[in-house]
Amino acid sequence: MGSEGQEVKLVGAWFSPYVYRVAWALKLKGVQYEFVEQNMRDPNKRSSLLLDCNPIYKKIPVLLHHGKPIVESLFIIQYIDETWKDNPILPTDPYERAMARFWAPLIDEMLLEGLKRMTYTEGEQLMKEMKQVSNALQLLEEMLKGKKFFGGEKVGFLDIAFGWIPIWLGAMEEVAAIDFLNPYQYPLLHIWSNKFKEVHFVKDSLYPKDKLVRFFNKFRESQLKLAPKKI
Amino acid sequence: MGSEGQEVKLVGAWFSPYVYRVAWALKLKGVQYEFVEQNMRDPNKRSSLLLDCNPIYKKIPVLLHHGKPIVESLFIIQYIDETWKDNPILPTDPYERAMARFWAPLIDEMLLEGLKRMTYTEGEQLMKEMKQVSNALQLLEEMLKGKKFFGGEKVGFLDIAFGWIPIWLGAMEEVAAIDFLNPYQYPLLHIWSNKFKEVHFVKDSLYPKDKLVRFFNKFRESQLKLAPKKI
Repeated sequence: MGSEGQEVKLVGAWFSPYVYRVAWALKLKGVQYEFVEQNMRDPNKRSSLLLDCNPIYKKIPVLLHHGKPIVESLFIIQYIDETWKDNPILPTDPYERAMARFWAPLIDEMLLEGLKRMTYTEGEQLMKEMKQVSNALQLLEEMLKGKKFFGGEKVGFLDIAFGWIPIWLGAMEEVAAIDFLNPYQYPLLHIWSNKFKEVHFVKDSLYPKDKLVRFFNKFRESQLKLAPKKI
Repeated sequence: MGSEGQEVKLVGAWFSPYVYRVAWALKLKGVQYEFVEQNMRDPNKRSSLLLDCNPIYKKIPVLLHHGKPIVESLFIIQYIDETWKDNPILPTDPYERAMARFWAPLIDEMLLEGLKRMTYTEGEQLMKEMKQVSNALQLLEEMLKGKKFFGGEKVGFLDIAFGWIPIWLGAMEEVAAIDFLNPYQYPLLHIWSNKFKEVHFVKDSLYPKDKLVRFFNKFRESQLKLAPKKI
């Protein structure tokens, strides 16, 4: 399905995995869109566009469709799937759909947010985060048993939701000096990561890892400055 | 659509608003189900059924359909809507659907969890919670402008999601010694509350307020015991 005159804008920032997943959903559907880059570093510099679109969370991504804002990446993907029907993203079966809706935000919290916290925590807290991250990776490994993609034979909702892993995890690992994504510890996840990076709409959209490493190093420094001093 | 041989079980507890919304969704669809009451007070007494069904969160509600567990109330409602197609719960329009998915968990956090915290916090924290609760109620008041129900002319996803308000808010208010749900402060919400309580599948399922008040008083006491002492 074409998207002429659909006026689709994606408000985001280059470093955000939450934004990329929305871009991939649009690309999978073949929807043309304009990318509107936001400065997210400085809360005082957030554009009036972002504040208008997402006054509650003031977060990216925001999808603007005919001027109407949709927020929260996982809800945006469901919106995209319900608006452009070709190339379905969510599974057809209601139980599988419920599972996809359940796992995506849980893995975001355990793995993506957990990894972020790992870049700037230490001691007991770091151990706790690390354990949670390992648990999340083990859950993903289990999910991939007997499957090519999380969606089965084709890329689906969970592939798009977890699609940040192949590149962001690598960058975060470098910053936090850990190594999860090796071929030995989580072999199925390792294979999937390489396969996902080769998917046609993903291939050209991934940022070079060294740019992300520099970004996460800065992020880490800013968080360490904010962190309460140890007593 | 009938549900003969569908083997639907709802694992829950009488006091939980998260459980009631699932029961209402099932009743709206005319799905017969068995209610399996769980003891949630004592974490050591949680049944093996609950631990098997929801090993990650160990929380209610759990819907068991043909033995398969679905967890998280808002995802369960979407599952019910996608499994039994009559009497649609979510709106048809993708944008409205996205909005419903966005508001439901946000109001849970701001209002339902906020009210719970209000029963046992004090000072600055209590003021903060109270402000958030007021903001949430104001958002609901805005949503009801020009509408009979949150779903429009008929009860929909957000009515079922917010359906705990008419009875639980009243009980929590008594425990926290506040009064939000009067006819003057949020008149549209007040009218909606009375209307929702009269909906045929809701009418007979609401618990007497005094039983809930006793429950929240005990909850409050247990939380106060847990709260860190002031320095």
